Amino acid sequence: MPASGSAWTNPLREPRDKRLPRIAGPSSLIIFGVTGDLARKKLMPAVYDLANRGLLPPSFALVGFARRDWDDEDFAKVVHDAVRDHARTGFREEVWERLAEGFRFVSGSFDDDDAFARLKDTLHRLDKERGTDGNYAFYLSIPPKAFPTVCEQLQRSGLATEEGDSWRRVVIEKPFGHDLESAKELNGIVNSVFPESSVFRIDHYLGKETVQNILALRFANQLFDPLWSSHYVDHVQITMAEDIGLGGRAGYYDGIGAARDVIQNHLLQLMALIAMEEPISFEPKQLQAEKIKVLAATRNILPHEENTARGQYGPGWQGSQKVPGLLEEEGFSKNSITETYAAIALEVDSRRWAGVPFYLRTGKRLGRRVTEIALVFRRAPHLPFDKTMTEELSQNVLVIRVQPDEGITLRFGSKVPGSSMEVRDVNMDFSYGTAFTEASPEAYERLILDVLLGEPSLFPVNEEVELSWKILDPVIEAWVSSGKPDTYESGTWGPASADDMMSRVGRAWRRP
Amino acid sequence: MPASGSAWTNPLREPRDKRLPRIAGPSSLIIFGVTGDLARKKLMPAVYDLANRGLLPPSFALVGFARRDWDDEDFAKVVHDAVRDHARTGFREEVWERLAEGFRFVSGSFDDDDAFARLKDTLHRLDKERGTDGNYAFYLSIPPKAFPTVCEQLQRSGLATEEGDSWRRVVIEKPFGHDLESAKELNGIVNSVFPESSVFRIDHYLGKETVQNILALRFANQLFDPLWSSHYVDHVQITMAEDIGLGGRAGYYDGIGAARDVIQNHLLQLMALIAMEEPISFEPKQLQAEKIKVLAATRNILPHEENTARGQYGPGWQGSQKVPGLLEEEGFSKNSITETYAAIALEVDSRRWAGVPFYLRTGKRLGRRVTEIALVFRRAPHLPFDKTMTEELSQNVLVIRVQPDEGITLRFGSKVPGSSMEVRDVNMDFSYGTAFTEASPEAYERLILDVLLGEPSLFPVNEEVELSWKILDPVIEAWVSSGKPDTYESGTWGPASADDMMSRVGRAWRRP
Repeated sequence: MPASGSAWTNPLREPRDKRLPRIAGPSSLIIFGVTGDLARKKLMPAVYDLANRGLLPPSFALVGFARRDWDDEDFAKVVHDAVRDHARTGFREEVWERLAEGFRFVSGSFDDDDAFARLKDTLHRLDKERGTDGNYAFYLSIPPKAFPTVCEQLQRSGLATEEGDSWRRVVIEKPFGHDLESAKELNGIVNSVFPESSVFRIDHYLGKETVQNILALRFANQLFDPLWSSHYVDHVQITMAEDIGLGGRAGYYDGIGAARDVIQNHLLQLMALIAMEEPISFEPKQLQAEKIKVLAATRNILPHEENTARGQYGPGWQGSQKVPGLLEEEGFSKNSITETYAAIALEVDSRRWAGVPFYLRTGKRLGRRVTEIALVFRRAPHLPFDKTMTEELSQNVLVIRVQPDEGITLRFGSKVPGSSMEVRDVNMDFSYGTAFTEASPEAYERLILDVLLGEPSLFPVNEEVELSWKILDPVIEAWVSSGKPDTYESGTWGPASADDMMSRVGRAWRRP
Repeated sequence: MPASGSAWTNPLREPRDKRLPRIAGPSSLIIFGVTGDLARKKLMPAVYDLANRGLLPPSFALVGFARRDWDDEDFAKVVHDAVRDHARTGFREEVWERLAEGFRFVSGSFDDDDAFARLKDTLHRLDKERGTDGNYAFYLSIPPKAFPTVCEQLQRSGLATEEGDSWRRVVIEKPFGHDLESAKELNGIVNSVFPESSVFRIDHYLGKETVQNILALRFANQLFDPLWSSHYVDHVQITMAEDIGLGGRAGYYDGIGAARDVIQNHLLQLMALIAMEEPISFEPKQLQAEKIKVLAATRNILPHEENTARGQYGPGWQGSQKVPGLLEEEGFSKNSITETYAAIALEVDSRRWAGVPFYLRTGKRLGRRVTEIALVFRRAPHLPFDKTMTEELSQNVLVIRVQPDEGITLRFGSKVPGSSMEVRDVNMDFSYGTAFTEASPEAYERLILDVLLGEPSLFPVNEEVELSWKILDPVIEAWVSSGKPDTYESGTWGPASADDMMSRVGRAWRRP
């Protein structure tokens, strides 16, 4: 390469050490719904943090689109406050200033043709002034019902059409529909404007280090794979527990519920990563093919009434704080049958997993905020110990601690010090915090960068979304036809029916 | 049981929860060579600690036998000082006083018939006065060349003969001979007086919690066994490294060397526990049968000159202290060819282990005091990663940390936080110190208690000793015929030939 006046060269054109972070190329990120919570708490801080880590090029622009009557400076002020309140990296004036030069705001509603014309004009000017090169990523941080309008407007204005070497991408957030039919409809609309390869569906769980590490653990090591099958695994528990309630979220949540909100996307994706076979490589196509294979082979354990559970939190205590039940939360109907806790049992019909139940559960107002994947192993086939010696020995467990306290725990039996051969469960721990000095990028940082880089590995495709609904739809239908969910006390671990579902088959939920 | 005036009832006659510690029955422990280092630093403190933990009965006596002109009170004073300096539990006056009432000293040399008559008289009086019931454990803490005389005296005086329900046991310390022939001779002498079932050979490594835990780990869990074979294990490294030199130990060590001193007993026993199949139960007979099976299937990897290494420490630095080489240590011949470092490569001819080398090494004046067993796993058969991503990934390792810092480490590859799929080795740890509140008994406590209880599980039998010599003899013969050992600098990890022995087959010693 000839020496250049600019310190920045496009790393995409260079042969590179793949361990070095890739830097995004020239591009504009356009956020629809930029006045919302997600934009303020996650997207704007992530953009700043990426810039601060040197992962955005000088020719990057951030464009906000919303109904507010803001100018570019008002918008910059909003971003500034969001960064101040939520960014993970320190504030550096020179980074901020260079980034803020690329901030633009377009005021308008989604059905306003003129607004889209102004947006187009803004983007074209950025291409010239800032060198964003006609590469646009449209981030739809908006309710799904607005998707058709925005997609149509993008198409009509010509903004969705790639020109020359430039690219156009669209980023959408869950919910990806509310059942198989609506998901197909939604995918149909999006795909009529953007080819599937330009659609990036955000499942922020897939942006987490601990989730990506599932692939490293399973496929970089000799240790784990031999244990990874029905020969040794008794069952798998995938848990996403939250301690918060739904105050203020009725508009989104009422009528949706825990299964659609969490199981359909996050938990089924985690299950796919745990259950899938080794991909030929980590190329997106290969990775997606393996996840799709798992989802296509997954079925509900029947009957539904014995192998699922759902609940709605009642009043209770969260720590020292008295909290209301769902029906007293603002905005929820007093007759709401929306579940805030959901648990289902699945089986993967494959040589590796036949006979191994995968238990997926999620809930609000549970005992503790924790997401984990636990592989619970069978008992040893024979114990050459006196019976009294193994009374405190339970099943071996490998726990992938997704969040918080990210890491891995192995639980196994060890001899209790003393003159007898008594065995008791002990834990062996690995913690990201102590093992690495490298900071974990926030999930949204990772995912936004991947959108700009055109790296689709961590984004579920159409087919995965539809297969996931195919798994969930019959469960939800069975629930609807059976009336109201059980109530559980806030701060506990869900309804009694969830415990029954496990004890019926001689198992128990972990209390993580 | 009828109520009794004494709070103490013999637990051996009671149905019991096996997790409760067993308490020794009425007995006398007779120590020959009671003025030696081992008696003072290990045996006397262990007896006190056992008493302090409530594991010795009121009817217990400790009898010293040596040439000194001591009376019982002199002896009690010596025990008192040894306990003060070396006991692990706190000093309790009432425990000490009750224990000290059973102290006796018999002055005499091993060839003095009268002394043995006095010993017999003393023991008989203890049987009557203290209720020791004719149960005698003779601890031969003496050089092997004195074994024949003492055994003969015990036989001639009638002390070796069990009467009625009473028992007579003999405890012997390594070295169990210096080659197969001498071991057979020694075993012949001992067994002519004591049946094999009454002989307790002390290998204090087998008294360590971490060593006994090998059985718990392997056979109480589902997790480890699937990995425990040539399918996944590349090789095993068993290391006992010491940082101390041999100043003051020439009399014992010169002409013996590291292989006879450590590999023949400790390391081959550790190897047997790692390599053995599951025993039907932990009954001594079953356990010994499995160890014997391993030792009988073990052979040296040939040729000796490429698969063994030995060295003698030269001057160097141990931390900040300048230390002399072996040839300058007091008492060693300037021409001594005694090795202070020994490494050998073995293979176990079994379905489970064929093709997996077991590397055993030990040395004085090495970098650090550490004993560990490392199972080094094969590399994953395929890595679906870009090559640069796994440059910092080495082989998975399971390390059983025998001492110090007792515990287990699992080393495996984990994703480095960041936007690439780079993998780096990390450690997962389990530590006894933090996992258990129960104190680990010192090895000698455990072993002395087992002698008094007649529990032979942790004592190698005759056949194990002889098989171990059979493995070691050809190595030592090859060494003798090839002249002087290499020299290594004190404070390093042994001679260059040891590194060559590994690098020749594409492996490397761990630096623990």
